[in-house]
Amino acid sequence: MTQRIYNFSAGPAVLPVPVLAEAQRDLLALPNAGASILEISHRSSTFAKIIENCESDFRSLLAIPENYRVLFLQGGARLQFSMIPMNLLGAGSQTADYILTGSWSKNAIKQAELEGSMRIAWDGKETNYDRLPRSENLDLNPGAAYAYFTSNETIQGIQFTNEPEVGDVPLVCDASSDILCRPVPVDRYGLLFACAQKNLGPAGVTVVVIREDLLERCPADLSPMLNYRTHAEQHSLFNTAPTFPIYIMGLVVRWILDEFGSLDSLYRHNQRKAQLLYEAIDASDGFYMGHAQPDFRSVMNVTFRLPSDALSSQF
Amino acid sequence: MTQRIYNFSAGPAVLPVPVLAEAQRDLLALPNAGASILEISHRSSTFAKIIENCESDFRSLLAIPENYRVLFLQGGARLQFSMIPMNLLGAGSQTADYILTGSWSKNAIKQAELEGSMRIAWDGKETNYDRLPRSENLDLNPGAAYAYFTSNETIQGIQFTNEPEVGDVPLVCDASSDILCRPVPVDRYGLLFACAQKNLGPAGVTVVVIREDLLERCPADLSPMLNYRTHAEQHSLFNTAPTFPIYIMGLVVRWILDEFGSLDSLYRHNQRKAQLLYEAIDASDGFYMGHAQPDFRSVMNVTFRLPSDALSSQF
Repeated sequence: MTQRIYNFSAGPAVLPVPVLAEAQRDLLALPNAGASILEISHRSSTFAKIIENCESDFRSLLAIPENYRVLFLQGGARLQFSMIPMNLLGAGSQTADYILTGSWSKNAIKQAELEGSMRIAWDGKETNYDRLPRSENLDLNPGAAYAYFTSNETIQGIQFTNEPEVGDVPLVCDASSDILCRPVPVDRYGLLFACAQKNLGPAGVTVVVIREDLLERCPADLSPMLNYRTHAEQHSLFNTAPTFPIYIMGLVVRWILDEFGSLDSLYRHNQRKAQLLYEAIDASDGFYMGHAQPDFRSVMNVTFRLPSDALSSQF
Repeated sequence: MTQRIYNFSAGPAVLPVPVLAEAQRDLLALPNAGASILEISHRSSTFAKIIENCESDFRSLLAIPENYRVLFLQGGARLQFSMIPMNLLGAGSQTADYILTGSWSKNAIKQAELEGSMRIAWDGKETNYDRLPRSENLDLNPGAAYAYFTSNETIQGIQFTNEPEVGDVPLVCDASSDILCRPVPVDRYGLLFACAQKNLGPAGVTVVVIREDLLERCPADLSPMLNYRTHAEQHSLFNTAPTFPIYIMGLVVRWILDEFGSLDSLYRHNQRKAQLLYEAIDASDGFYMGHAQPDFRSVMNVTFRLPSDALSSQF
């Protein structure tokens, strides 16, 4: 234990020590399996139990309604940036709306533009991405295939505390850097995704929560590996699943349930932690220069600059 | 140790116990890193060293020429089935040749056909995929974008011991189930790929060895996540790499080098192991019914049926 340093990285994030200790204890052989999690088949009964428990604990924490599917995929948020328009644009000339709040939403639209024509519903560039739009600021297209936002911009340190109001258009969210940090009303989303390495586990698995009716949009001539419908129909076992990252994610969600019981309790904990840092920034007489405007400060990523940093850079 | 069973699974395969033991020892903190491999950044100096050593030991074992790039990707062989035609078909109406020798090559062409028009250069269905073609049996198109084969068919238990002769057409190989089992002349390949979970490590990383000139074919309007050129230019770090599977693969290739020194030595070892099983099949008076014709028997997957199995099923 003494060899572990304090790790404040936004991601990959530190994992709970009890999770690491359990994985360590069982690394040569899972209880009653006779083999390592690194050696068992993704179609074995042992792994079936692991992925079922992981999904069930995750659904319980986020209170995911029954008409949503949970998929465990590979390729990180980056592959989702392409899979979302590939699957959801629908046949013909539909476009989607993107809310540009910082580095990750800009990466997302750049990849989406390779798949179709995208609209910008809001762009925070005028104030260097230090704030988020109010719903009345959004220039939305009621005929959009979906409306996309990034719930927490890691690099800018700004975070939505409420979902943008987009009417009947399916809301799509990159929640990679704040998933499970607070309760969210999943029924307001069409699709919510997160790569694991910030809040869920190690790199190598990406969770997609998708409303079932949207699966009907997935084009039949799309590669089955890029098609949400394949993965939904095959319960994320169309191909060999990333067994180890899913196993660790299962231990993490179980740990959150055991330790906090609910996301309400975890959210209060997160707010107290972030408050300590923002208080230090605010009391530093400008020594620490926070980037985010106070109303939009993230409880996940507290961003600031030091006097030694270059003058506020543009993102 | 006593809790480990004998595991004869073709894949995911058993890992060397010294590899598991080292990963177990360091799971809470890598030496001098102060954090777990599950927590460090794919852009950290610690991980840079891990991926560099993994690539360098892998190149050394396979004797990969300098004009080939080694990429560490996600999505398994299944994503390669789509990425290969997406990247290599080239602009316009090129087609590719597929050699159908069993279940995996049939899966590969099925996905490729979603991306373009494919030709079948040989199909072993007449004898229920119990043998491989000689080069003179192949019906090749000299203008093909590439010629595709599966070096070892896991389910049928048949394995190429020499590369098919395809002239100047780039040879593309799914070596998922026999990579590193024997030395191969890499310079005869255009692209060689393998998911890790059979011979290289745990599920979650796929290695692609690609001849540099083929990168010029990758379409500029292809999603960067699906584009070999992106991953080559970014040294497999365009997005968060699957750090843990790469770490374990690094330990496995180092173990092979330490234990066997070369693939020649490992191949002799593999041949001796397989021989023991084939001898038992041949001496069983038909109790064990081998599927593969003797000339094409795999040293990786020894397939047979028992009298209690249904009459020889069609694949």
